[in-house]
Amino acid sequence: MENNDPAKGFTVTPWEVKGDVDYDRLSREFGIKKIDNELEERIKEEAGELHFLIRRGIFFGHRELGWILDQYAKGNKFYVYTGIAPSGPMHIGHLAPFIMARWLQERFGAEVLIQIPDEEKFLQKKKLGATLEELHEMAYDNAAYIMAMGFDPKNTRIFLDTEYAGTLYKQAVRIAKHVTFSMVKDAYGMGNDSNIGWIFYTSMQAVPAFLRSVEEGKNIPCLIPLGVDQDVHFRIARDVIEKLGYYKPAVIHNKFMPGLNGQQKMSASDHLNTIYLKDTPEEVRKKVGRAFTGQQATAELQRKHGGNPDICAVCQYYKFFFEPDDRLLEGIFKSERDGTLLAGEHKRDLAEKINAYLGGLNREKGRWEGRIRDFTSKG
Amino acid sequence: MENNDPAKGFTVTPWEVKGDVDYDRLSREFGIKKIDNELEERIKEEAGELHFLIRRGIFFGHRELGWILDQYAKGNKFYVYTGIAPSGPMHIGHLAPFIMARWLQERFGAEVLIQIPDEEKFLQKKKLGATLEELHEMAYDNAAYIMAMGFDPKNTRIFLDTEYAGTLYKQAVRIAKHVTFSMVKDAYGMGNDSNIGWIFYTSMQAVPAFLRSVEEGKNIPCLIPLGVDQDVHFRIARDVIEKLGYYKPAVIHNKFMPGLNGQQKMSASDHLNTIYLKDTPEEVRKKVGRAFTGQQATAELQRKHGGNPDICAVCQYYKFFFEPDDRLLEGIFKSERDGTLLAGEHKRDLAEKINAYLGGLNREKGRWEGRIRDFTSKG
Repeated sequence: MENNDPAKGFTVTPWEVKGDVDYDRLSREFGIKKIDNELEERIKEEAGELHFLIRRGIFFGHRELGWILDQYAKGNKFYVYTGIAPSGPMHIGHLAPFIMARWLQERFGAEVLIQIPDEEKFLQKKKLGATLEELHEMAYDNAAYIMAMGFDPKNTRIFLDTEYAGTLYKQAVRIAKHVTFSMVKDAYGMGNDSNIGWIFYTSMQAVPAFLRSVEEGKNIPCLIPLGVDQDVHFRIARDVIEKLGYYKPAVIHNKFMPGLNGQQKMSASDHLNTIYLKDTPEEVRKKVGRAFTGQQATAELQRKHGGNPDICAVCQYYKFFFEPDDRLLEGIFKSERDGTLLAGEHKRDLAEKINAYLGGLNREKGRWEGRIRDFTSKG
Repeated sequence: MENNDPAKGFTVTPWEVKGDVDYDRLSREFGIKKIDNELEERIKEEAGELHFLIRRGIFFGHRELGWILDQYAKGNKFYVYTGIAPSGPMHIGHLAPFIMARWLQERFGAEVLIQIPDEEKFLQKKKLGATLEELHEMAYDNAAYIMAMGFDPKNTRIFLDTEYAGTLYKQAVRIAKHVTFSMVKDAYGMGNDSNIGWIFYTSMQAVPAFLRSVEEGKNIPCLIPLGVDQDVHFRIARDVIEKLGYYKPAVIHNKFMPGLNGQQKMSASDHLNTIYLKDTPEEVRKKVGRAFTGQQATAELQRKHGGNPDICAVCQYYKFFFEPDDRLLEGIFKSERDGTLLAGEHKRDLAEKINAYLGGLNREKGRWEGRIRDFTSKG
């Protein structure tokens, strides 16, 4: 993860993640604070537990999380806003912000707003290979999976931009008035050849971060769990939202889920190294079977020298999602390190865990499919 | 009106009209065709009459009006799209496109779509002196006046952008994808300091020009009567709309209504020289009483030398709206030219005509005020 050599740089924008991301350096550049032990203690105090995604540093950074906890302690509840831009079927790398949002809902009683900007990828990608209508359909598929993750329907609002623009556009216009082309040009690397929809888009993404305050006619704190690549939207929006007289939204940032090949970020377009939520048990077994483990070339060498769990995709999958128990996770890491667990067994175990999770998720998603179109907010 | 000296240039954009506009030169620059005698004959043939705004060259230019008439003759009816960006109370200078739209509805049975972009001036003007909420209220006031002009409610759809964005935004995104910052930069003189809402806005204005085709799932011709300053929106949009597979909208352009001071374009911010639709009879009499007539300095000189109706604001008001009968108009012009009609009498007559018109319009507007919020389309 060390990459302090500028010549071996990395790029992190909402639309491109390239290179080997150094999260410390990224935090300095973006102005993101680390979630430190003190903050962890405070979360634990208010929530009654500390989610393993925070404990393990997968949610590593924040903006004003301390303030959110102050407000909460004073009885001023926050709401949670997150989302996903549909570009295809969802994969495991998309889950972290939703797992966190659901936990925040459960532990803090937070209302959750979920935005599905079905226009974003359409505007961003010159050659997308999908029409706006196809993205719209994908958006519903994504929405059904998200609701299947266990959000409380009574305390959750989920919407597609093209269907909720009646609510969003008016507020987006208020944001847009304070954002110049220079600002998005610098922040996103846009140019004269960028289309005007993409240029405008960030205003739409900003809206749910203060929408509840608009609706209630009084300030309500907002907390946004998101992949760190999305941070730039709120670097700009936080200042504008404050100018409009609302609380700046707070943010917590998660690291990228690695691909099965050990690459730092799972990519939806890299089918073989990505576990899609819709993958069959057989597909999961095949993909995991080909995963990069960082083990020695032969079983004999592995037994002798052991492997490195920090570069092993299988170990990382346990760490990110599939082994919430720290002691059990340490056991897995240890058996990798000391060579007692061979790759084949290791992978079979993980595939089973993934399949158990996806099995339940897809059953629940099936139940949501029939009602998701009615459930999403319109207007 | 002659202004062929580039050093004495003029500017015509949707947001600024400056200098003395040479409509011939403007037409060449914009690529607008003149509505010639042949076209006038064809309109007359289909409509059974020729509206005096066309006959008198106030609607002077067009794009593909011939094609609209061809389609109509083949039984392929067109719809009409026009609108107004609210920035304050409506004035007489705003009426021409609506008078034309209503006539087209009456004579061609055309459905009419009226867009009220209540966000446009908010985005465009750095210091507007009106909030988005205030523009929203003005938009309803404008809408009530427009409907009071006699549109058939069963064949007219009128909507505010911020309330109809649920329908408009999705289509605007399709337009926006094909419009780059370079294009709007050149067309509107935007720069790096332009805000991203204003940059995007033209996409919203383009939507009603193909919305009926989207809704019907088949191509329906669209005719747009507009002030020539709005032409640029459709210079860009026509090409994009065609790329999306729809008919290019046709356009007819009107000249600017002069101010009471004889200036070429009535301006909403120049209160003394502008007749607002809400003006009381007394205000109208006062304003018209101060109008520029181009008459001689004294009654004696005027009787001797006569005046010039072409620069006389009072004569121009008759020409634009208040004397549809050409023979009677010629009588008025003649009496100005030969000095038989003195300014005082001349102005009293006009003020009475204006007050008669505004009296009826405001009564009808009063009837619309209570129902306009329900009548505008939402979603």
